[in-house]
Amino acid sequence: MLRYNTAMSCTLRGTIRYDGTDFAGWQRQPGQRTIQGELEAALAQIASEPVDVQGAGRTDAGVHALGQVFSCRWPRPFPPRLRHALSKMLGPEIRVLELMEAPDNFSARFDARSKRYVYTMDLGKEPDPFGARYAWHVPYRLDLDLMEELLPKIRGQHDFAGFQSAGTQMESTQRTLYSVTLHQGGLVAPLDGNSFWRLEFHGDAFLYKMVRNLTGTLEEIGRKRFPPKFLEEQLASGGPFRGHCAPAHGLALASVFYEAPNTQ
Amino acid sequence: MLRYNTAMSCTLRGTIRYDGTDFAGWQRQPGQRTIQGELEAALAQIASEPVDVQGAGRTDAGVHALGQVFSCRWPRPFPPRLRHALSKMLGPEIRVLELMEAPDNFSARFDARSKRYVYTMDLGKEPDPFGARYAWHVPYRLDLDLMEELLPKIRGQHDFAGFQSAGTQMESTQRTLYSVTLHQGGLVAPLDGNSFWRLEFHGDAFLYKMVRNLTGTLEEIGRKRFPPKFLEEQLASGGPFRGHCAPAHGLALASVFYEAPNTQ
Repeated sequence: MLRYNTAMSCTLRGTIRYDGTDFAGWQRQPGQRTIQGELEAALAQIASEPVDVQGAGRTDAGVHALGQVFSCRWPRPFPPRLRHALSKMLGPEIRVLELMEAPDNFSARFDARSKRYVYTMDLGKEPDPFGARYAWHVPYRLDLDLMEELLPKIRGQHDFAGFQSAGTQMESTQRTLYSVTLHQGGLVAPLDGNSFWRLEFHGDAFLYKMVRNLTGTLEEIGRKRFPPKFLEEQLASGGPFRGHCAPAHGLALASVFYEAPNTQ
Repeated sequence: MLRYNTAMSCTLRGTIRYDGTDFAGWQRQPGQRTIQGELEAALAQIASEPVDVQGAGRTDAGVHALGQVFSCRWPRPFPPRLRHALSKMLGPEIRVLELMEAPDNFSARFDARSKRYVYTMDLGKEPDPFGARYAWHVPYRLDLDLMEELLPKIRGQHDFAGFQSAGTQMESTQRTLYSVTLHQGGLVAPLDGNSFWRLEFHGDAFLYKMVRNLTGTLEEIGRKRFPPKFLEEQLASGGPFRGHCAPAHGLALASVFYEAPNTQ
């Protein structure tokens, strides 16, 4: 017997933004408030049945997203008002920017061609109250010129095993960074926030804690605790990571791209 | 008998910045967490005696400050490390930007010559998670050109009794707005926050809720709920205020000036 609703199911692709401060990260965990958990609970309530959500990237506890992408199967035809209903259920910390029907086999995770991460530092002597949730406070004088000069060393294709943290082990640790740049201003910063600086990383994929390990290592070099050659040596070492891991709350997943990088 | 410490007292002038979200406003109140209360408690602990703090302006619950100014008598000579000690005691939501010795008769409140307030609106269809604490979410299409055209009507010296809320009654309700301007961007906004707009008010002094009443009224005109002439009529009416009061969390005291405005 054909069940009409099942036959008329579809695949959803959503783009969400969140302030990760008060979440235990992306991945659902029993008894914890997580982004995936909140999304799945809201979608299950609307669908009246369980919904499995897949994210383009798992963000750790405290990490934010300007544009995380998720996909899921939906047990009915595409509902035009779903984005609005979902956004309302999720409350002020998670906003559904976009929700569309995707090809049936679309996977937010496996179809992602590249991602952009932003890491924000507050270089003021004392932490700015308006950056406390979104910036790593670094109260040291950093040699930003030196840090910027070193960025080409990590651009391009490399084995980044030296910059991963223990966690999910990947078959290959080869990754390509299309660009790594340093800018004034933060993911979120006050009007007069001249002390805010950010590193932007655009790459095909990222190993566990790779952005935070690269950022923390660049910061240690910028403040002259590590010599500049440490960056290349750590890259060449193949691990384990011996640098400094920047804290989670400065990091944000900015965008996920599903087109090849040269067409962006 | 001369008490050495008392004879060697001084007047302090401090500039502080705060995220007002989790405070019941500036003014000390029993059993409530307030900015003045936290400052006085921290200073009293350092001084080992009560300290009375005066603020340039009282901010309401939820209102922020980029640069509030306070003054107080200090029962000892000026302590060079006090700014640092005080900032540490106050925690991440309040930051002491500057602390200096002022002339003995300096009053943060009575010597203020002018103040600048910033009011931030998030005009996106749904509230941006990164603006939830700092912007009034206005999900309507606003005629920003019309709002900007009307700003000259409230510039200059006027009796602003029509835009005050019941509260502290002032002897005179004449106030001068040196400038009122509309800008893209917010007090605090994310990198891609194109939906954020702010009104900036620079004036000699402000009546109770005057900025929020002016902002809410301009918003109602911008969304075509009130006719444009409402602004002038309300100004001419002398009160009571019949417009819309914008919520507290979009407002910030940006700066306090102690010089005449033409020298700023």
